[in-house]
Amino acid sequence: IVAKYPDQFPAFVASLPMNNVPAALEEMDRAIGQLGAKGIQIFTNVNGRPLDDPEYYPIFERMAKKYDLPIWVHPSRTAKWPDYPTEQKSKYEIWWLFGWPYETSAFMARMVFSQMFEKLPNLKIITHHLGAMVPFLSHRVGYGMDQFGSRTADEDYEGLRKRMKKRPVDFFKMFYNDTSINGWASGIRCGLDFFGSQKVLFGSDCPFDPEGGPLFIRETFKAIDQLKLSKDDRRRIYFGNAKRLLKL
Amino acid sequence: IVAKYPDQFPAFVASLPMNNVPAALEEMDRAIGQLGAKGIQIFTNVNGRPLDDPEYYPIFERMAKKYDLPIWVHPSRTAKWPDYPTEQKSKYEIWWLFGWPYETSAFMARMVFSQMFEKLPNLKIITHHLGAMVPFLSHRVGYGMDQFGSRTADEDYEGLRKRMKKRPVDFFKMFYNDTSINGWASGIRCGLDFFGSQKVLFGSDCPFDPEGGPLFIRETFKAIDQLKLSKDDRRRIYFGNAKRLLKL
Repeated sequence: IVAKYPDQFPAFVASLPMNNVPAALEEMDRAIGQLGAKGIQIFTNVNGRPLDDPEYYPIFERMAKKYDLPIWVHPSRTAKWPDYPTEQKSKYEIWWLFGWPYETSAFMARMVFSQMFEKLPNLKIITHHLGAMVPFLSHRVGYGMDQFGSRTADEDYEGLRKRMKKRPVDFFKMFYNDTSINGWASGIRCGLDFFGSQKVLFGSDCPFDPEGGPLFIRETFKAIDQLKLSKDDRRRIYFGNAKRLLKL
Repeated sequence: IVAKYPDQFPAFVASLPMNNVPAALEEMDRAIGQLGAKGIQIFTNVNGRPLDDPEYYPIFERMAKKYDLPIWVHPSRTAKWPDYPTEQKSKYEIWWLFGWPYETSAFMARMVFSQMFEKLPNLKIITHHLGAMVPFLSHRVGYGMDQFGSRTADEDYEGLRKRMKKRPVDFFKMFYNDTSINGWASGIRCGLDFFGSQKVLFGSDCPFDPEGGPLFIRETFKAIDQLKLSKDDRRRIYFGNAKRLLKL
């Protein structure tokens, strides 16, 4: 499709068999090296395992060092993950409503505190939902994690904090993020205020709206228009950041 | 303390033994009826059980019908609640950093979808952290839950949605919320844009800041000042809403 309609579909990204890291690396090389993919998409867990498990490190390493292309991360969880320890499943679809943005946020924390950005300063990760819980709670992340370790006795988190080269919240600012919060201007403003316009890329979540596609695109345009951004910021969000990250 | 320093401490609220509902009701009557408490504080779960368990209904019912006073809700979770099903505990203090706001959001969803506001239209619940995940993700709650049921086959959630008297997101707007997001103007703006100034009350989270108290108070004042609110909105947030809800 990308080859046939380059004006409509300027790039594609690869999906990898994350349950088999050597095969995932092989597919990454094939998709990017041979087919021309401009990045990969992963999920926030692999069969329930977190992505900072050292087994997955070669995937991040190769994306940062060999390809310097972005990694999109999408949340993943089903109703089988209960919200309360006394229950067997998640009720009322909370698993995707809040569970998915929670997963994205937990993933971000795991990347930051496993010091992934210190090992791979060139790592480019694009979160879904504009950083999920991070922008609105960014001062909780900031002042809260400046005290990281003070609520934990059985791990040396204070030692970890002292080893980190900047404030924890400043590592959270290293993520790239899409605008996909369903056309909510006030939320996009909050995301931009935290991450800055260099770190935000247009995304719509099409086709998961009640109209089956056009609503979220239309409403996200409207929301961005409401913000009265500078021409430079608009260009970055709509295509400049994508062009740079995807090397288009 | 309230009796001795009424100018500094205009009111207090009660803590209840939630693991014993008859005793909780008795303590509610004693604290409010005899001691003059102006509300109660509960937590987002009771030993891991959700608050929409019918056992707890009499507590909400009595607060709404007999006293018409607010219920503060504070998140509650420890490192023992793992973030991934393959792990035994929550790492890097994610349990409070994101776990608590997640709990608050799940609690709100459980209240809404158990139709608590339809059974008790007068119910007044004050969330911590300005509605936690709800304001930033309010259009996800909105458009997403307009499709409530479409991702679930083993429960009749579409039937539930049709029985609800308004859009799910409009029930989320019925919560009251404190400004306690650690002095982040852009987040408070987002919360006000979603809930409206009638539903937001000043709160600082003192003393849980790196200075042990004054920082969050000072920074929350600063953040509210930055928003250039109307005089009426400022008065509501700083004391008007509290005076009305607490009947002071």
